[in-house]
Amino acid sequence: MLIDGGQMTSNKPSFTILGTGALGGFYGSRLLLGGAEVRFIANSDVEHIRDHGLRVDSPLGDRHHFPIAVYRDSDPVPASDVVCVALKTTQNHRLIELLKPLVHEGTVILNFQNGLTMEDELAAAFPEASIIAGLCFLCSNKVGPGHIVHLDSGLVSLASYDERGQAWIERLMDAFSAGGVQVETLPSLLKARWRKLAWNIPFNGLSVLLGVDTDGIMADAHARGLAKQLMEEVAVGAAACGVPFEAGFMEHLLDITRKMPTYAPSMRVDYLAKRELEIEFMYERPLREAAKQGARLSAVEAIARQLRYVDGLNRTVHHLGLS
Amino acid sequence: MLIDGGQMTSNKPSFTILGTGALGGFYGSRLLLGGAEVRFIANSDVEHIRDHGLRVDSPLGDRHHFPIAVYRDSDPVPASDVVCVALKTTQNHRLIELLKPLVHEGTVILNFQNGLTMEDELAAAFPEASIIAGLCFLCSNKVGPGHIVHLDSGLVSLASYDERGQAWIERLMDAFSAGGVQVETLPSLLKARWRKLAWNIPFNGLSVLLGVDTDGIMADAHARGLAKQLMEEVAVGAAACGVPFEAGFMEHLLDITRKMPTYAPSMRVDYLAKRELEIEFMYERPLREAAKQGARLSAVEAIARQLRYVDGLNRTVHHLGLS
Repeated sequence: MLIDGGQMTSNKPSFTILGTGALGGFYGSRLLLGGAEVRFIANSDVEHIRDHGLRVDSPLGDRHHFPIAVYRDSDPVPASDVVCVALKTTQNHRLIELLKPLVHEGTVILNFQNGLTMEDELAAAFPEASIIAGLCFLCSNKVGPGHIVHLDSGLVSLASYDERGQAWIERLMDAFSAGGVQVETLPSLLKARWRKLAWNIPFNGLSVLLGVDTDGIMADAHARGLAKQLMEEVAVGAAACGVPFEAGFMEHLLDITRKMPTYAPSMRVDYLAKRELEIEFMYERPLREAAKQGARLSAVEAIARQLRYVDGLNRTVHHLGLS
Repeated sequence: MLIDGGQMTSNKPSFTILGTGALGGFYGSRLLLGGAEVRFIANSDVEHIRDHGLRVDSPLGDRHHFPIAVYRDSDPVPASDVVCVALKTTQNHRLIELLKPLVHEGTVILNFQNGLTMEDELAAAFPEASIIAGLCFLCSNKVGPGHIVHLDSGLVSLASYDERGQAWIERLMDAFSAGGVQVETLPSLLKARWRKLAWNIPFNGLSVLLGVDTDGIMADAHARGLAKQLMEEVAVGAAACGVPFEAGFMEHLLDITRKMPTYAPSMRVDYLAKRELEIEFMYERPLREAAKQGARLSAVEAIARQLRYVDGLNRTVHHLGLS
C-alpha cells in the first residue's frame, strides 16, 4: 500500500485519551511525542496533572509533558478525531455516558480494553462512530498521580470492528509509529481478542488465586498444568466461535511466558490494590459467547466463580490469608 | 433377618484399630463400650495412651479408657477378627506394609478412609481377607495426645467389596450398635463412595481454596454456585461409572449443608495443621476412574491442581496469604 508520508503529517488525527492511567498515560505520551494533538481525561489526578504535568518513565526515555491538555470527565472537551478508551472494563457501566459528549459523526473509538464483546456494545451505542480495537501488549504501572512507569513492550495490534474502521487503520498506525510505538494490524477482531484471552484467562486469574506472578505459575508443575488446561479451554471457545488457534500457538504462548521476567498480570495488580477485578469482560463474557455456540468451558467457569468470591472478599474486609 | 442376640455376645468379633486419631479413637472407644475386644495402634501418642489411657469427650458421654491395649505399628499385635483402617489416605504408600502382620486368612479389613479405589488395592494385596468399606459421617477432632473430642454424628455405612464380606456385615452392625453407633448397610460400595464424594469433592477442596468453613461456602452465591458445579461434575462421574445419583440427591446434600452448623471439613483441618492433603484418593483417583469411562470432570480437575499447588506451598514455606 502506498503511503503518502507528506500528506500524513498535515492530516495527523487528534486524540482524546479517556483514562490517564498506566495504559492511557503511556500511549497518550507516545502520541504526543509523535506530534499528535492529544487531550487527556483524568479522574482523581486531574489537578495534579494540570499543575505538574504527566511524567512517563520508560526504557524509551523518561518524559515530562507540561503543560498538558487535561480535563475532568464532566468538563467540555474539544472534539478529537479519535477517542481512545483506556478505562478498565469495571468502569463499563458508565462508559457509554462518558463517551456521549466525546463522540460525533465519524469519530473513531479506539478501544484499548481487555476482554470480549466490548466493541459490540460500542457499535450499538454509537452507530455514527468507527470502532477499532487496539489490543495492547504493555507492561506499565501508574506509581503516583500523573506518574507512569513503563517497563516493557508496548505493541498495539489494531483490528477494525467493521469495514468503516479500515480507512482509519493506516492513519492510526502512522500516529503510533511516529511516537515510537510498535504497531500492527490484524484482519480479525474476534480472533485477536480470543488469542489475547488465551493468555489473559489463565495468567490473570491464577496470579490472583495462587497469589503469585507469572514466574510462580510457570515454576510449579501443577500451576503450570492448570494454566495449560485453562488455555486449552480457551482454544475450545475460540474454535466454537469460528476463530480456531493455529497449531503451536499455545505452546508459543507458554514458551514466551516461561522466558518472561517475573511479571504481575493486571488483575493481580488490581487485586493487590483492592480494585474491582475485570471478571465480567475477561471471563464471563467469553464463557457466554462460547456457550452461545454450545461450548462449556468448565474449568474457566470454576476459576471465574472463585475470582468473584475473592474479589468480593477483597473489597469488603481485610482478608488475612488463604485459610 | 433373624439375629440371635445371645449367640452374638459369645461370638463378638475382636478389632484392631490401625490409627488412633479423631476417627479411630472415637470408633474404637464405642466398640470397647459395646463390649468388644479392641486393640489400638498408635504412632506418636503410643506412650501417652499407654500411661494415661484414651479420652473421648462426646455428647454421648465423656469416656476414659485405662488401661488400654495400645501398640506401636512395629510391635507384634495379637490377631483380631477385624482390622479397621483409620489412617488418612496420605499414609497409603505404607498401608499394605502396615497391614501385612495384622491380616491373616479370613481377617476382615474394614476401611474407614475417604476417597475412591482404596478397596481395590486392599483386595489385590490381601486375597485372603474380606474387604468391607465403612463410610463414616463423623464430626470429631483429636485435640491432644490420646484425647478425642466427638462433636456430632457418627453414622457408619457398611458396604462389602464382594460376596465374602457380606457374611460379616450383620456381626459388624451388631458390634457398632452395641457401642451406640448408628450403623447402616448399603448394597453398592461403588455407589456409596461416589455419593460421599459428591459432598467431599466440593466442600473439602473449596474450604481449603477459599479459606472458609462450610457455612462460608453456602453463604456466598459464587462459592455456593461453584460447589454445585463441582457436585454436578461428580454426578457425571458417578453416572459414567454406572452408579448415577437419584433425582433430588444433590439438592438434598446442599440442603443438609445449608442447615449444618459451621463445620471445618477434614481437608481444611489438615491444611490448617499443615498436614498433607488427601488429594490423590479424594480427587485424582475419582478423576482417573471417570476418565476410564470417558468422562472428563474439568472443574474438579482444575480444583485438584490448585489443591496440589497450595498443599505443596503449605508444607514447604510459611505462606503469608492469598496474594
